[in-house]
Order: sequence, then C-alpha cells, then structure tokens
Amino acid sequence: MGMVGGGKDAFIGAIHRIAANMDGLIELSCGALSINPEIAKDSAQTLFLPEDRTYLTYEEMIQKEAALPADKRMDFLTIVTPNFAHFAPAMAALNSGFHVVIEKPMTFTLDEAKELKKKLDETGLLLCLTHTYSGYPMVKQARQMAQNGALGKIRKIIVEYPQGWLSKLSEREGNAQAAWRTDPKKSGKSGSMGDIGTHAAHLAEYISGLKIIKLCADLNTMVESRMLDDDGSVLLRFDNGAVGVLIASQIAAGEENALKIRIYGEKGGIEWAQMEPNTLVVKWLDQPTQLLRAGSNYTNMLSSFATHNCRTPGGHPEGYLEAFGNIYRNFALTLQSKLSGTEPSKEALDFPGVDEGIRGMAFIDTVVASNLSDQKWTEFME
Amino acid sequence: MGMVGGGKDAFIGAIHRIAANMDGLIELSCGALSINPEIAKDSAQTLFLPEDRTYLTYEEMIQKEAALPADKRMDFLTIVTPNFAHFAPAMAALNSGFHVVIEKPMTFTLDEAKELKKKLDETGLLLCLTHTYSGYPMVKQARQMAQNGALGKIRKIIVEYPQGWLSKLSEREGNAQAAWRTDPKKSGKSGSMGDIGTHAAHLAEYISGLKIIKLCADLNTMVESRMLDDDGSVLLRFDNGAVGVLIASQIAAGEENALKIRIYGEKGGIEWAQMEPNTLVVKWLDQPTQLLRAGSNYTNMLSSFATHNCRTPGGHPEGYLEAFGNIYRNFALTLQSKLSGTEPSKEALDFPGVDEGIRGMAFIDTVVASNLSDQKWTEFME
Amino acid sequence: MGMVGGGKDAFIGAIHRIAANMDGLIELSCGALSINPEIAKDSAQTLFLPEDRTYLTYEEMIQKEAALPADKRMDFLTIVTPNFAHFAPAMAALNSGFHVVIEKPMTFTLDEAKELKKKLDETGLLLCLTHTYSGYPMVKQARQMAQNGALGKIRKIIVEYPQGWLSKLSEREGNAQAAWRTDPKKSGKSGSMGDIGTHAAHLAEYISGLKIIKLCADLNTMVESRMLDDDGSVLLRFDNGAVGVLIASQIAAGEENALKIRIYGEKGGIEWAQMEPNTLVVKWLDQPTQLLRAGSNYTNMLSSFATHNCRTPGGHPEGYLEAFGNIYRNFALTLQSKLSGTEPSKEALDFPGVDEGIRGMAFIDTVVASNLSDQKWTEFME
Amino acid sequence: MGMVGGGKDAFIGAIHRIAANMDGLIELSCGALSINPEIAKDSAQTLFLPEDRTYLTYEEMIQKEAALPADKRMDFLTIVTPNFAHFAPAMAALNSGFHVVIEKPMTFTLDEAKELKKKLDETGLLLCLTHTYSGYPMVKQARQMAQNGALGKIRKIIVEYPQGWLSKLSEREGNAQAAWRTDPKKSGKSGSMGDIGTHAAHLAEYISGLKIIKLCADLNTMVESRMLDDDGSVLLRFDNGAVGVLIASQIAAGEENALKIRIYGEKGGIEWAQMEPNTLVVKWLDQPTQLLRAGSNYTNMLSSFATHNCRTPGGHPEGYLEAFGNIYRNFALTLQSKLSGTEPSKEALDFPGVDEGIRGMAFIDTVVASNLSDQKWTEFME
Repeated sequence: MGMVGGGKDAFIGAIHRIAANMDGLIELSCGALSINPEIAKDSAQTLFLPEDRTYLTYEEMIQKEAALPADKRMDFLTIVTPNFAHFAPAMAALNSGFHVVIEKPMTFTLDEAKELKKKLDETGLLLCLTHTYSGYPMVKQARQMAQNGALGKIRKIIVEYPQGWLSKLSEREGNAQAAWRTDPKKSGKSGSMGDIGTHAAHLAEYISGLKIIKLCADLNTMVESRMLDDDGSVLLRFDNGAVGVLIASQIAAGEENALKIRIYGEKGGIEWAQMEPNTLVVKWLDQPTQLLRAGSNYTNMLSSFATHNCRTPGGHPEGYLEAFGNIYRNFALTLQSKLSGTEPSKEALDFPGVDEGIRGMAFIDTVVASNLSDQKWTEFME
Repeated sequence: MGMVGGGKDAFIGAIHRIAANMDGLIELSCGALSINPEIAKDSAQTLFLPEDRTYLTYEEMIQKEAALPADKRMDFLTIVTPNFAHFAPAMAALNSGFHVVIEKPMTFTLDEAKELKKKLDETGLLLCLTHTYSGYPMVKQARQMAQNGALGKIRKIIVEYPQGWLSKLSEREGNAQAAWRTDPKKSGKSGSMGDIGTHAAHLAEYISGLKIIKLCADLNTMVESRMLDDDGSVLLRFDNGAVGVLIASQIAAGEENALKIRIYGEKGGIEWAQMEPNTLVVKWLDQPTQLLRAGSNYTNMLSSFATHNCRTPGGHPEGYLEAFGNIYRNFALTLQSKLSGTEPSKEALDFPGVDEGIRGMAFIDTVVASNLSDQKWTEFME
Repeated sequence: MGMVGGGKDAFIGAIHRIAANMDGLIELSCGALSINPEIAKDSAQTLFLPEDRTYLTYEEMIQKEAALPADKRMDFLTIVTPNFAHFAPAMAALNSGFHVVIEKPMTFTLDEAKELKKKLDETGLLLCLTHTYSGYPMVKQARQMAQNGALGKIRKIIVEYPQGWLSKLSEREGNAQAAWRTDPKKSGKSGSMGDIGTHAAHLAEYISGLKIIKLCADLNTMVESRMLDDDGSVLLRFDNGAVGVLIASQIAAGEENALKIRIYGEKGGIEWAQMEPNTLVVKWLDQPTQLLRAGSNYTNMLSSFATHNCRTPGGHPEGYLEAFGNIYRNFALTLQSKLSGTEPSKEALDFPGVDEGIRGMAFIDTVVASNLSDQKWTEFME
Repeated sequence: MGMVGGGKDAFIGAIHRIAANMDGLIELSCGALSINPEIAKDSAQTLFLPEDRTYLTYEEMIQKEAALPADKRMDFLTIVTPNFAHFAPAMAALNSGFHVVIEKPMTFTLDEAKELKKKLDETGLLLCLTHTYSGYPMVKQARQMAQNGALGKIRKIIVEYPQGWLSKLSEREGNAQAAWRTDPKKSGKSGSMGDIGTHAAHLAEYISGLKIIKLCADLNTMVESRMLDDDGSVLLRFDNGAVGVLIASQIAAGEENALKIRIYGEKGGIEWAQMEPNTLVVKWLDQPTQLLRAGSNYTNMLSSFATHNCRTPGGHPEGYLEAFGNIYRNFALTLQSKLSGTEPSKEALDFPGVDEGIRGMAFIDTVVASNLSDQKWTEFME
C-alpha cells in the first residue's frame, strides 16, 4: 500500500494506517505523505518507510512505483488528502494500473466521480471508498434484516448525524481540520452534507437497499462568518414509497459523533447507533425488543456478513478502528482473490465502491440544489 | 371535579382520575361518563359516585350542578371526550361559571380555540390544557436552562415522537382508540399531528421559549385504507433564527411512546426522553456531560420549578402519572389561590392553558396546509 | 384508613398517602400524625382531616375509632412511625379488630414479629407490609419467570442496594431521617441491613421463591462516630443449592437508590433495576437478550401478575409511587373481598405480609450474628 | 516478536497478533505456534512467516533465534499457551536474553511467579503481563482519579465479572477453550478465579492503588461433573480500611464479558464497565453525575495516561483490541527506549508486569485457601 496525504498532524491518515495494519494483510510500503517536503520526510521516517520509497508528490510515487518490478511495487494507492485532491491522484493511479482506496466523499464534483467510474470500467481495476460505518458488523446485520424481509416492507427511515465540533468558528482558531473542511475550495459545495451527510445517506441506502428518489433540504450556516453550511435537515422519499428524515449537524454542541439510524417496517424496526456499535436493537410490533450483539454465540441468528466482520467473541467491544479495518480487510481479500485468480467470497466483496461514491456526490448536488429551491421537492440528480 | 367522558374502556379518563386523585387535592364528585347511559351508570357506580350526581349528558350535569349550593357543586369540569366533543361542553361549562380542564388538542378547529379564549377573557375563568409532558420536573428544568442562557443562543431543536401502535389497520379490528383517532370527523384534520405532533410542538416551544414561525411538512398515510395521516416529518424555523425538525409517527413499529427532545445552543445541549423522564442529559461543548436528576440533593442546581414538581427523593422514579398529576396539582393550587383570593406561586401557575391550545390548533392547520403545498415553506398561521 | 405517624416533615408518611390515594379505593379518614400535638394538629388540617378524628395518640385513635359505628370507623390502621414504634400500635389495632399496614422492617425485634403473627392467626385480621419494591409489575414478571422454570434451575443471585445519602455524618447535621435511622434505639440492631438490606433480601426471596439458609456477613461502619453499620456485604446460600451475594450500602457516594437484582439459572438470567423499573432484561444462553416492558402489548408473554399491576400502556413510565400504590391497591382489593365475603383474586392476594416481616427480622438477626462471628457461615435463624 | 502458542483455532493468540500489529510498532517475525507440527506449519504459513523461522518447539525457537545476528533475531517472546505452559518458555527466553510478554495468569503456581521475578531482577529484562483491561484509557483515568484524591478516601470497592459461557458442560462437548480452562492440570487451582477473578482483582488494585490484605471466599462448582470451580464471590478488605466485594462467575447465563468496577470514596464514586469502555461514570455526593469520555476535547480534565492511550477523538469507539494494543504499544515504547538508551515516558511504563503477576498468583492461592477454610477471614498470602 502506498499513501497520498496522511502526514503527521493529519487526522484520517493515521486512522487508515491502523485500519490497514490491523489484520496483518496489508503493509504500508511507500508514501507521498504531505505537500510539505519536510513533513513528508519526517512522517515517512516515523513510519519506518525506506528513504527510497519516500516520495514528495503523488506523481513521483506513481511513476517510480510503476517502474518497480511487479512483486516490489505497491499494490494499491490510498488517497487521504482533502476532498479537492482526490480525483487527480486516483486517476493517475488508475492510469498506471494501480487499484485505489479513497476517503469519502469520493471526489470534488459529480463529474469527477463519473469519470472515475468510466476509467474503472475500462481498466477493471478496483476502487474502495472508505464509508467506514458500513464496516461495522451490526450494520451488516441490519442490512441483511432490512433486505431479507424480516421487518416487512420498509416505511420510515430516520438517520441522524449530530456532531458539535464546529460549534465555534474553529477554522479561524488554528484548527487545521476545521479550516479545510469549511473551505468550499477544498471541501466542496456543502460542509455538513459533504463531511457527514454523505455518511448518513450512504448508511440509509446501504442498510435499507432503497434509493432516495427525491428530497427537500434545509441547509444552514449557524456560525457566523463560516463559509459553508454546518447544519442540515432533509426530508426524504425512497423508491419503494418509504419516507425519511436525514439530519446532519456540526453545531450540535456537546455531541461527539452520534451517527444513528432507525428503520421501521411493517413488522418491526431496527436501531443502530455508532457510539454503541456492537448492539443492534430490534423492536417488534408484537414481541419484546431484542438486542442482537456482535460476536454472540447465537450464530444461526446472525448473518454471515456480520460474523465475517467480527474478530472477537461477544462482550469484547470492537469499535471504529475495527469497522475501518473491515473495509480494508474486505478490499484486501478481494484484491488477493483477484491477484490469485480466485473468486472472492460475497462477504469479502461487501465494501463500498465507485457506485456508492457517485451516489454520494449526487446526494451533495441534490441537497444543495434543493436548499436553493423554493419548491418542496427536488428529484435526486444522479 | 366533574368529568365528561372517561367511562369504562376509555383510556385517558382513568388516567385523569389517577392524576387528579394523587395529591389529595381534588375529588371526583360527579360525571357524565359516557354517551351510552348503561356505561355512564356502571362507570359512575364503580367510581363510587352518588346516584344523584351521575348524569347522562354534559348539559344535564352543568345545569344541575350549577343549581347546587356553591359549596356542594363541582368546582371545575374535566373534558376527556374525543376531540370533536371538546368545545361544546367547555363552552357550556364556562357559560355556567365552571372552570375547565381539557385534553389536548384543545378543540376541533382553530376557530373554536379562539372562541374559548374570548370566553375566558370575558369570564376570568381558568382553563387547563393537559399537555402532560410539560408536567415532568426535568422538562421544567430544561425550560429553565434553555431560557436562562445556560446553553447560549439556541440554534437547533430536534423533537421526535415515534409510536408504533397504528402500524396495522387496527381501526378496522375493533380497537376503539384507533377508531376515533383515525377518523377525521372525530379527531380532526390530521391524525399523527393532532394526536402526538401537537405534544411535540408544544414541548419544543415550552422548553425553548421560542415560537415556530414557518415550517415545511411532509404528512403521509403509510397504512393503506387509513383515513388520516399516520406519520409526518416537519422542518421548522423559530423566531430567533433557530432551525429544527419535528417527527411524529404512529407507524414506527416497535416503538412505545418515545417522545424525545434535543435542544442545542452555542454552549451546550440538553436531551430529555419521556421514557427515562427523571434524567436530563446536559451536554457541554468543553466539559463532560452531566446527568441532572429529578429529586436530587444538589438542590441549588435545580430550578424551583423542577423541585416543586417532585414528590420523592432522587432514585425513586416518578413517571407519567406524576407528570399528569403535576398539571392537575398546579391547576388545583392556582384554583385554590383564586378561590381564597391569594396569589398563586409562579410554580403553581406553570400549567398549559388556552394560549398553548391555540398554538396547537394553529400548528395542525399549518402542517396540513404545508403538506398540501408545493412550496417549501409555509408561514405559521396563528 | 387511619394513620399513625407521618406528620409534616416525615418522609414516608406522605408517600403512603399518595400511594393510598392513587386508585380512589382508600380514603384517609383519621390520624395520630405526630407525637408532637402541634404538628399532629397542623398536619391533620393540611390533609383536610376533620377535627374530631384528629388524634394525639394512637391509643386515643384506636379507642375512639373502635367506638364509632362500624360504617363510620376506619377500616385499617397504617403505621409509618420509626421502627421501634411499630409493634405497640399494631398490636393495639389488632386487639381492637383493625387490620394493619406497616412500614418495613415490621418490628423492632424478631420476637415482636412472631407475636404479631400469633395475634393474626388468632384474629384472622390482615397485615400488609410495605416492601414497596415487590409492587413493581416487572418484579412480578421476574417472579413468575423465576418460578415457572423459564430460567431453569436457579444458580446465582446477586442483589445490591447502594445508596450514598449517609456518606457524611448527617445525623449530627440536623437530618431527622438520618438521626433516627442511625440510632440503634429507634432503628434496631443494624442500620444498613434494617433500612435497605431487608428490602434486598425480601426481593431476592420474593422473586426467586427460594429461602436463604445460611449466610456470611461483613457489616461496617464507614463513617466515624456513627452508631450503626452503614455498609454491609453478605454471601448467601439458598435452599435449592443456589449461591448469592447481597450488598447494601448507605455510603456509596453519588448513588441514589440503586436497588438491582440479577438472577441466573441454567437457561438464562433476569436483571431488574429499580431506577429503570419498567424494563425487565431477560438474557438467554443461546438467544438474544430480550427487553420485557411493563404495559406492553405482547400480553400473552406477560404474567397476569404483571398486567394487573400496571395502569398505563407501555412507554408511559410508572414508578415508585405506583409500585407503592400497588401494595395498597392489592391490600384494599383483598380487604374489600374479605368484607364482602368474596374470594380475592390471586393477583390481589399478592402483597407482603407477616411471614415476610418475620423473614426480614430474622435476616437482621442473622446478619448481625454472622458479622460478630469468626466462623464463615451462620445458619439463618428464623 | 516471536510467539509460543496461538496456532489456528486458539483464541487468544490471534488477539495478541492484532493488538501487536495495530500501531505498526511490532512485527511477528517467528513462531512456535502449536505443539502439533501440522498446525504449527499451517498457522505460520497463513501468517506469512518465513519457513526458516517457523519452529516446532519453543526450545528450538529460542535456541535458533539466539543464534541469529542481533539485528535479525526477535526482540521478545510472546507466550500465549495455556497456563501450565507459561513458566518454562518464559524462563528459557529470559535465560537466553529475550524479553517476554505473557498471558495472565502469569504462571501455574506462585512459586514459579516468584522465580520469574528473581530472574528478571538478575537479568534486567522486561516482562509484560497482558492484563488487558488495564489498557483501557478510561481505566487509566479512573486510576488517576482514585489515586489523586478526587474521590476522597476510598471506602468501598465492588468489582464483578459475570460471564455465562460455561453454563453448560461445554468441556465435554468439544469446546477446546472450555476443556483446558476447566482442567486443573492445565489451568491451575481455580477455574473462575484463575481465568477471570485475577482480572477483577488486578483491576481493583490497579485503579484504587490499594492492596487486598484479607478476604473471605466462596467458590462453587455449579455445573455438575466440572473439575474446577466456575463461580465465586469474595469479601475483601483493603490496606487502607476500605471494604469490598469481588464476584467472578462463568455460569451467569446470558452474560457476555461483563467486567465492571465501582469504587466509592468519601466525596464520590466512579463506575467503569468493560462493555461500554469509553465512558467513565463519575458520581458526586453533591453534584450531578458526569460522564467522562475517552478521546474527548476537555483534555485538561483527562489524565495524560488516558489521552496517551487513545487513538481517535471522542465518539469513535475504541474497544478491547485497542486496550490490548495499548499494553503492547506501551511495552514496545518502553522496549524501544531501553534499546536506545533513553528514558521511557511514565505513560509508556504503565503496563502490568511481574509484580502484578505475583499478586495474581497469590490471589488465586488465597481464595482457594479461604474457600477451604471455616474461618471467615484469610490473610492475603503473597
């Protein structure tokens, strides 16, 4: 694995490395870790990268790695730069025959997203999009139950993602994360929806198997002088007739990372909260609520997708890093199969890719358009 | 206290009687408990009402009670009939000099609500509207904190009220509660919003001290053949610039009565859930979350409105009936003061009345209008 | 109902009155509310008692009430005085043909408890012991499940009752509750075990249907200068071979009233916590945990004892006062049946009485003896 | 890192590998992964170990690794075999100059534990004992608060560790884990206390900074035909006068891995539960309960020991594997410092070692002796 971005002080790069390390399937072998050469070198040294595979630009990395013998070069490139700098290295990597892993949102614009898909179709290479939350075992379980009819026809979806970290104008107080994420030139058209709303929308579609077909968005900039929206609420309509609400806020003061989803069908409902991720609450119309637990011993009641993504028995909590690790692990297993000419398991194949990336970019476009419109409903513009 | 409605098999009448009994301040002395004479008599007997104060109609009750000596007649009339039958007995009672307690929503139409207010202004009589949830001590605490600046300027309000009890077409299966509540002739213009949305809207305004100024509603009838909406989601704008979301659903299968509100300001947020009512979760931007508990011993941190509405020390859970009892108790204390010519305490005066009833009816009108409109926003039509 | 004790400023008397009022079955008709005549009179007036039934001593009350015509006199006497003053009024009442309700622990000594039983056997009168916590519907449900084999043979019981209210030497700081409860002349041989340990022991035996046969106690006085133990932990052995632990502490700083019980059998376990009383957590060896909820609609899964003791549908939390009210209501229903010569239902008969009172006094004697012993085990000395 | 034990199908070996991998500081370089040569080879291959460093016995591994040049050989040996097979490889490794990491309990007997300490004192080598639960950041936070006086003098400690996985006679049903852990020849003198009681005792001493000085134990074998106890409850006395209770059960049917500790002092109490590990509940005598959260932004309120052991911001749950990883990471950081001649940070030095291992073995000896004794108290026999 080679990495673009993710130098010291970056947040998400370190997370990607832990996730990739965890299962002993992936090794960081080279990197262009920062646009600042000092930081790039320092970071590489800290990570025990050899000097000759410490690069200063992604272009250099791709060119030099491509020139290495096949068994020495990186297998894939992980892109953990700010949103505006996803597309170029991804395209360059694909053009040189490298698979790619990209942080969400996949690109800066919907057009870029579609170009990536075209390129993937041409090359047959793999793209993995790190929508972390779909890596949790109980999210997999929820998906299976929502889609196998256990809940009956789905009627209502409520997905919420409150955070409080942008309650102040932190982008002016030296918070580098806040700075680029609230800058439309680096982050994209929407702040709250690009950063966390896309996670929420993806989770809703991933679990339910439904597609948003129209929506009504209210985006707001609650902190004065901020350049992008930091809060949004969206009414949703899905392709099976279900209705929904999506809330994404970065000014919910005192909240940490409280992503939560509830899906109600004719027969019951499921509830999953990221901050207590090992429990899936299953509520029934005519029976007591059940708590399904990751890693539990009633294995016949848990989907193979849930058990495949657990490392420990019930009661040994796995968390965010393991969910992230599951995305990498499944990508790595699929890549191994591909390289060895075998068929990956359906569980390994279950990681987000370019189609989810396109949905995400289209979601951003649609909520921004809806927010500007006086009309109640705006069609989903994929 | 006299009672209209609330015979055997009715749900809310029994609740009102327990709430009124609880503190030994109020005695049920007469009733017209059902339009069915048999049920009216049977119910009265079960409740130890004397035969001569067992009435068959509210007209009879009001007339005969008014004819009793002042110290023998009922002090006030409690109206626990279906929504369409609130206005007539209320107006009759007021016309005969009786104070009234009414179940929410206050009336069938906004016009009726305004007429009641006019009559109250003329007569100086009291009207108490049983928005039960505002009777909880930790709701009072939330109100004080939201309004005394503890949270800073309020930015976002999320209030939700999911229930699952109308997930099936129960109104056709002999469920009397379901039958009238889904019948537009008895319940009013909206099902979900009349029955529970008004509670949610009231709670949001009661705690925050803000007023909804415009909204965007999506009402849905998710169970086929039902005559009224059973689900709704509403985007909100408040008069101080805050934004919000209100969700009220009767088809959230597996949910009991999960009213919950979150209010976020610049400095922190509060969260209160009806099903764990003795805890107010207070989240701070820069400090650990605190759990404020009803009846606790750090009395200097609890508002007098919270402590006034507790009967037991912390850890002895009080619930729905006590919250309901608080409405009655405060109404009774205010009435006692009025009758004895003294000034009621500010804590006793804190019960919902006709203004809240008008807001509720206007809320129903506005969400129904918004739902029919193609425009995103509809002004609140009080 | 007549009341001994429970004047203004007393804690538990007010609770008894709310509990008795709640269901409209019981009326406070007379009282000897304090040994202080001023307080006795003031309190009676506040409670709307007629002057001629406001008494200054229990002896006077029993004598004068007995002299009233049968349909005018009180039906039963409620005794809410400190522990040392339970026996004399109870015996006097029984001698004059009045039924009694007594706060726990039933008496000051085990001998007194046995004398009461003898008297009840002679007179056929009723005695109700207000072990409040056994009045909760989900405790009833737990009892049915533990005793009908749902959990398999019971193996382990953990019952704990941490409170923090005696963490300081409050008895010297004007806290009247603390003063008598830590005074061996008023409270009895043990502080923590008399006040709350008896509740815990009763709950364990009530739910499990098992009897403690031996125990090993460690009682401690953790606050210097206190006259009675304020903390204790006890190892338990039950008559079916099950083992257990009982913890009762009044110096668990920061705890409110955190009574909790867990019972594990061969097939599963149940967990009930008084501070979240409407949920019974049922854990299974090979299936997901279930949350059984008071008032829920899966009535076929709830015992008739649970449903009989609920007043509201699921999601409308009932609490401590309702549990207390259930004790009174069941006592009143049983008394009504007795007076009318009918058979009370088995659900009505389910309230604690003299046998539970004797077990409680014997428990206190046994833990105190064990605490003084060097031997590990002390036989239960009933 | 070399590994003894931990072949395919072993539980804890895989956990150790993930924990060691996580932070990119440690690499598995060789192993004697099973006493079964087939399994040893297969397992090594799956883990990408080179053939020439795949060994069949620990003796072979230690001998051949010692013969490698210093920069090629393993730095330390991790021992993840059953308890009876800890001492021999540990002693052999130390004798050959390798540091060691050992699963708990450290040895089979207390004497072995003391011998290891003697050897460490002689050689100056490092020993790390993987008492995982002390690796959680909120356990570190609890330790700091308990020991810096925030809670006042500590009075009561309740530590419990209920599991249900041995509710059946699984050792006869092909469960390999159950088989060796219930076999006194492989596991040691006590089942429940060796396997999980030692974790609980360590946690109590680690957080509180107190030492158990005497105890009263009741060990039981609740599943017929089992060869070792599967349940135990212990009364505790600590060296500062505090009292306590320790419960460890493997037959608490339906429980997963519910380790929980509560520590009460004069001013407040703390509560930490392994299954919700990112929250430390802090209860105060006179103030609202606080929820301290791992990774939160009120960094001045969190100990440096807590923040050092977090990888992600608040709301991104870290779990069991990260806690385990913290033990390895701190050991690795300390080892790096040692190898580079620098001083490790106090945070890095904070991992369990031989002294904790001796306490653990002495704890097992003492509870077993106490269980056999008729006397209430048995002195802690270190």
